[in-house]
Amino acid sequence: MTADAAAGETAGKPAPAGPSRRSLIGWGGAGLALGAAAAGGTAAALRTGGDASPAALTGDAVPFHGAHQAGIATAVQDRLHFAAFDVTTTDRDALIKVLREWTAAAARMTAGHEVGEGATGGLDELPPDDTGEALGLKPSRLTLTFGVGPGLFEKDGKDRFGLRDRRPKALVDLPAFPGDNLDAARSGGDLCVQACADDPQVAVHAIRNLARIGMGKVAIRWSQLGFGKTSSTTPDAQTPRNMMGFKDGTRNVSGTDTAALDKHVWVGEKDGPAWMTGGSYVVARRIRMHIETWDRTSLKEQEDIFGRDKAEGAPVGKTRERDEPNLKALLPDSHVRLAHPDSNNGATILRRGYSFTDGTDGLGRLDAGLFFLAYQRDVRDAFIPLQSKLARNDALNEYIQHVGSAVFAVPPGVRDKDDWWGKALFA
Amino acid sequence: MTADAAAGETAGKPAPAGPSRRSLIGWGGAGLALGAAAAGGTAAALRTGGDASPAALTGDAVPFHGAHQAGIATAVQDRLHFAAFDVTTTDRDALIKVLREWTAAAARMTAGHEVGEGATGGLDELPPDDTGEALGLKPSRLTLTFGVGPGLFEKDGKDRFGLRDRRPKALVDLPAFPGDNLDAARSGGDLCVQACADDPQVAVHAIRNLARIGMGKVAIRWSQLGFGKTSSTTPDAQTPRNMMGFKDGTRNVSGTDTAALDKHVWVGEKDGPAWMTGGSYVVARRIRMHIETWDRTSLKEQEDIFGRDKAEGAPVGKTRERDEPNLKALLPDSHVRLAHPDSNNGATILRRGYSFTDGTDGLGRLDAGLFFLAYQRDVRDAFIPLQSKLARNDALNEYIQHVGSAVFAVPPGVRDKDDWWGKALFA
Ligand code: HEM
Ligand code: HEM
Repeated sequence: MTADAAAGETAGKPAPAGPSRRSLIGWGGAGLALGAAAAGGTAAALRTGGDASPAALTGDAVPFHGAHQAGIATAVQDRLHFAAFDVTTTDRDALIKVLREWTAAAARMTAGHEVGEGATGGLDELPPDDTGEALGLKPSRLTLTFGVGPGLFEKDGKDRFGLRDRRPKALVDLPAFPGDNLDAARSGGDLCVQACADDPQVAVHAIRNLARIGMGKVAIRWSQLGFGKTSSTTPDAQTPRNMMGFKDGTRNVSGTDTAALDKHVWVGEKDGPAWMTGGSYVVARRIRMHIETWDRTSLKEQEDIFGRDKAEGAPVGKTRERDEPNLKALLPDSHVRLAHPDSNNGATILRRGYSFTDGTDGLGRLDAGLFFLAYQRDVRDAFIPLQSKLARNDALNEYIQHVGSAVFAVPPGVRDKDDWWGKALFA
Repeated sequence: MTADAAAGETAGKPAPAGPSRRSLIGWGGAGLALGAAAAGGTAAALRTGGDASPAALTGDAVPFHGAHQAGIATAVQDRLHFAAFDVTTTDRDALIKVLREWTAAAARMTAGHEVGEGATGGLDELPPDDTGEALGLKPSRLTLTFGVGPGLFEKDGKDRFGLRDRRPKALVDLPAFPGDNLDAARSGGDLCVQACADDPQVAVHAIRNLARIGMGKVAIRWSQLGFGKTSSTTPDAQTPRNMMGFKDGTRNVSGTDTAALDKHVWVGEKDGPAWMTGGSYVVARRIRMHIETWDRTSLKEQEDIFGRDKAEGAPVGKTRERDEPNLKALLPDSHVRLAHPDSNNGATILRRGYSFTDGTDGLGRLDAGLFFLAYQRDVRDAFIPLQSKLARNDALNEYIQHVGSAVFAVPPGVRDKDDWWGKALFA
């Protein structure tokens, strides 16, 4: 796009609903359009408070509306900000208002726009609608995926929002697994939003603005940044490596394999309840790695633990990453042998986790590991049996510890402008 | 690069010093070269344990050797992992050995190679030389910048390594500033390494592998991930925005302005000591932002605090970001008026900070802010007077708090293969 076109766009931006702050004040006003013209190419991909969607902007935007929520089958983005929220209001209507506002904001942000009138629209005397740190950044394939936790339906025996009867049978509280060392402050939550984007600033911005919209009614319980993806839903792409140095996500549900998605990921009509048809269930586990111990382990031991070689990622006895594992050639306690669908009556999850490093733990060790995210049609046939087996037998357990846990029902996609996150649930 | 060329490179990789593990074992071996050929383009930019430097690989590598360390004047990369280390050994020779090994590893990693024989070279029975999670990633403009803290020269009155007399006068312990709320666990350190890269996994990998090399002799005291740059050393590029939504780094020392660098950033021959000529001093401050309070502040208030408008970044009364501020038009307690060189006898720093978000603080608030990094020729004429003034007067103080602090002397660049981090200091 030329500098002129970019400037035209800024100038041609539709007037916001209220009086524009730029028409009310003097300094800086003229600079907006002039500056954009002068900056040339850099202005082309600006986020905007208006509704214009220049091609440069939507080029890397993922559609928000659809039968399923984006961020599940979507080709995995580079970075993550995942947030779990507690609902602090007891007022059902206030909660619904937040969810409607969240949905509107999510639709805007995923398209590369700012929230409402943006960080610099609206009136000078009011806090801006958007916090502004994503202004000038591309949509970066931002997806925002919304879920509801068990506590929304019932907490301490109380039916908080008249939703108790609507709780899906599949939304069970996860059992305790052997070896779990869960931190309550990093577990649970009434609602969740998973923000994935290729630019972390875009993901952080999105969660922050949702938290801000919900202020006084919902509060962030915990949140997790993931700096590197560990799974791929695009089998033709280079498989990312986790913090143990192994390719992770080789055998995963492909985001374009609709048959596999229908079978393993999307809730079917017959599964019920109706408000969940087309949705999914997500399990989040913060898994700390004992990095320093792992790093002292021999290459052979490391490869034995996974049952794949480190360089190529090929299963034992095979030469290529994509070769089908011959499970009998793998040690009985190897991770891949234990986790493979053939060892689990076909149980299959779509993994979508991210590596994290959150500084050090006060003992000079990196607080690093895998923020494991798995989507599935029913946790009772998927994550729970899988993890029950892994927690008991996996050779990997010597090097990891699960320190956070949560489960959420992820409703189907937002259909159109009149739909919102949870509409069918609250109907 | 074609698939054939990439495969040729893998195949033609020089044999490592020891027996190659691939010649000793069976499975997976053949897959290495075959897999690379089949994968085509993806193999072109692989990190490698060998010494080949294909153009695709070095294309985004920043030279490691030179008169100054890279990572200061270098065009600011997208992501940061900064680590401060305590020296735990009391043995001078053991420490020197770590520094030599660090330097060799840093030269390899910044060029896009793995450490030593890599994650999959060497013998099966030994832990690999490299942790492997950057295998297959590009150099990503990785820079590793090394510094030494006051504690290396003297701690608790003790001259630990016979270096007391070599301490630069400019390496003062920072004074306490009004409003400081420093966490000892996030402050200080005997050594530091700043890893900057466009890919966070590359920056995280580098620090982790250095920590591993130093195991038992040095230990990470604290570390900080930065997900988004807040400063630019390239005045022609789009200025990034900080977590307050403002363009940050507009007026900064340009990385190509050698006169300004010589005047404000590099230690001169006359400054002394000799081992610091061509080096610099870095101040690191973890500055927490009261994000939620800031987000409730009106646009006018926000703009008044900085003395610049939010959309364009123009100073009060001007229209363009790059216009020179007219300081008298700014409120007396505005950040830019107080921090500008003209208000400080010309005191000038090169800012190179990053935004951070480290989850939540247990009270539902994002633990987010600015990890401030400033390079200068002498902290006594630069950061200290600047921050003394800001800490007392800055309108911004209502919304921020300094919670971590450290200062390091950053030696000049590593000249050649025989030179190492700290050689002149220990000479
Ligand atoms: C830090 C913890 C974990 C690490 C480092 C890890 C790593 C890996 C690696 C390297 C692979 C092989 C490559 C691949 O096919 O993707 C793999 C496969 C797999 N993992 Fe994990 N994993 C972890 C935790 C889990 C957990 C908690 C589960 C489920 C409860 C799980 C389920 C699976 C499954 C289903 C496969 C594919 C098996 C197959 O079909 O061959 N993993 N994992
Ligand atoms: C969270 C804390 C801080 C924030 C959000 C912040 C933000 C900003 C912003 C938005 C600007 C204007 C744009 C620009 O010229 O880059 C600026 C300028 C500047 N800041 Fe800060 N800053 C912070 C802390 C500090 C500290 C601790 C110092 C030094 C002790 C400092 C020194 C400067 C300087 C020297 C300038 C350029 C002034 C000029 O030459 O016009 N800042 N800062």
